[in-house]
Amino acid sequence: MSTSTSTDALGTSTAQARSAELEQLIRKDPSRFRVLTGDRPTGRLHLGHYFGTLHNRVRLQDLGVETLVLVADYQVLTDRDIAENLKEYVEELVLDYLAIGIDPERSTIFTHSAVPALNQLLLPFLSLVSVSELNRNPTVKDEIAHSRQASVSGLMFTYPVHQAADILFCKADLVPVGQDQLPHLEITRTVARRFNERYAKDRPVFPEPEALLSTAPLLLGTDGGKMSKSRGNAISLSADADETARLLRGAKTDADRRITYDPAHRPEVSSLVLLAALCEETDPLQVAEEIGDGGGAALKRRVTEAVNTRLAPIRARRAEFAADRALVRDVLRSGNARANEIAERTLREVRESMGAAY
Amino acid sequence: MSTSTSTDALGTSTAQARSAELEQLIRKDPSRFRVLTGDRPTGRLHLGHYFGTLHNRVRLQDLGVETLVLVADYQVLTDRDIAENLKEYVEELVLDYLAIGIDPERSTIFTHSAVPALNQLLLPFLSLVSVSELNRNPTVKDEIAHSRQASVSGLMFTYPVHQAADILFCKADLVPVGQDQLPHLEITRTVARRFNERYAKDRPVFPEPEALLSTAPLLLGTDGGKMSKSRGNAISLSADADETARLLRGAKTDADRRITYDPAHRPEVSSLVLLAALCEETDPLQVAEEIGDGGGAALKRRVTEAVNTRLAPIRARRAEFAADRALVRDVLRSGNARANEIAERTLREVRESMGAAY
Repeated sequence: MSTSTSTDALGTSTAQARSAELEQLIRKDPSRFRVLTGDRPTGRLHLGHYFGTLHNRVRLQDLGVETLVLVADYQVLTDRDIAENLKEYVEELVLDYLAIGIDPERSTIFTHSAVPALNQLLLPFLSLVSVSELNRNPTVKDEIAHSRQASVSGLMFTYPVHQAADILFCKADLVPVGQDQLPHLEITRTVARRFNERYAKDRPVFPEPEALLSTAPLLLGTDGGKMSKSRGNAISLSADADETARLLRGAKTDADRRITYDPAHRPEVSSLVLLAALCEETDPLQVAEEIGDGGGAALKRRVTEAVNTRLAPIRARRAEFAADRALVRDVLRSGNARANEIAERTLREVRESMGAAY
Repeated sequence: MSTSTSTDALGTSTAQARSAELEQLIRKDPSRFRVLTGDRPTGRLHLGHYFGTLHNRVRLQDLGVETLVLVADYQVLTDRDIAENLKEYVEELVLDYLAIGIDPERSTIFTHSAVPALNQLLLPFLSLVSVSELNRNPTVKDEIAHSRQASVSGLMFTYPVHQAADILFCKADLVPVGQDQLPHLEITRTVARRFNERYAKDRPVFPEPEALLSTAPLLLGTDGGKMSKSRGNAISLSADADETARLLRGAKTDADRRITYDPAHRPEVSSLVLLAALCEETDPLQVAEEIGDGGGAALKRRVTEAVNTRLAPIRARRAEFAADRALVRDVLRSGNARANEIAERTLREVRESMGAAY
């Protein structure tokens, strides 16, 4: 077995160029594509998620691309805190999806723990990947380095192969990812290719899914660091207007009263400018100019107003759905049923290709 | 995570003592127990298998112990030759089972690739085992050392955890094993214990299955080495009387005309004596005495007669079943249906314990 999981600068720029091409193809014929996206249920989604990926999912769905949204509930088991309140975490994530406009009539929201035929794919897939390839995967290396666990679990070690099952069970051909996830997707592509070569030469079962690289600019947290719920520097989609105002009042800025958009030299101020611009769907340079010499206080007022205006309908929808948990469970139940149908069909094909249909 | 997979002499003798105890308990109340056994479909079963394990399975079944017999078809994928003719290998194995007296009305014969809910257990179970524990497993180490593959696949690496799923999906409490498999069973016991501790403290989901150590004496191949189909020194259950006679005529003996039963000093002669005794259900010392000074030729005549007499009804049954492949497929279909029922029930409990029933 050989590998090709290294992602250098060239690889990234190729992926970017290909993503731009794919965007053209999607616009021309959205029904040609099937997208798989998803999240681990690790807590409330925030503005970083929203502008980084969530907004894009709704855009793809609304363009007419078939979209499956995975709640990766088996990928949080090593976090005891989440594992003990799994149902709550999962339901909150689904609420966030519904709030931002994922439409369960058009998109399939599902938890992978509810789809046995998907999980079974892990076994034939594991036979196609070597232990040394798993050891080399940079995201797994990273997870291992950052793990709070004393040891690495077999589940974490085999995570890229499970992800291959998550993506391939529905024969997704597009996967919206950040650059750091390219190596994972490469393992998925390798698994698809090897499966076809080994078992399905004449009639390939799996597409080699392509990365749809995010073009979203990076938003910083209110402290200027990476936006993350665990750092307390993130504004959740479900936060209320007052909490949002409070968080933004405490946001880091600088002493220069003139507001500019200059991410390289003024990252904190620029991130706030960018956030306002994203919410208003305008240009950050224009936002900065409009604030002019207003200083940090004016900037924060503007951002707070922009965020609260943008999130108001999302929050209202969220509150509506939150009041009706039965509906959330219905969404999951029907999404899981649909995912099971798809997975069972794929597994049947997989078994037939492998000569294991007795 | 700690481990306890080392099996020293003391561990083995403890296991032997416990197995003897278990035999008493089985005789007293066979319906208390559920046994999981099985094989990888790697080719025709032979006399070594028969007296080593198969005969014992039929004995347990006939005593009234609920018996599940697993065809481990996902564990042969790395052997290209078998993978390309999987269905044939699986059906031949089932034919062997039926021929020796596994009764599909009382026992469940199934392939694990047909039971998605069983395979799904691999995921939560992988979260309970560390990579270093998997690395330490002696059977995996051995597999890796003897592997003809250039690299170790993820499937081989995680094999003990898959085996835990195979055993625990039906809550088997007894697993007939050879000494070399004790470390595997130890991982299964660890998984069961950790699952219960972590997710099901109040109402344990899994028993910690116990080893039922084989007391069968070791039969050598006709060349005096380990009996193995790939060495051409094994007598298959499905061989005919002539082939059996030919194989035994070529069996290794020694120059001493006086036949004795002395495994330590005359391993080849003694193994033939033992084989005759096992077939005739008598004592090897008596067989040796009866042959007396007859030498190798008399010994071989006696063994050939004994084997062919013993196998005659098995071979007749096998030929009957082999003529009706539809029946073999029916056996698998109903076995798989029953295994799926059991696996789905267990997976439901697992999901509920984990709080993943949405």
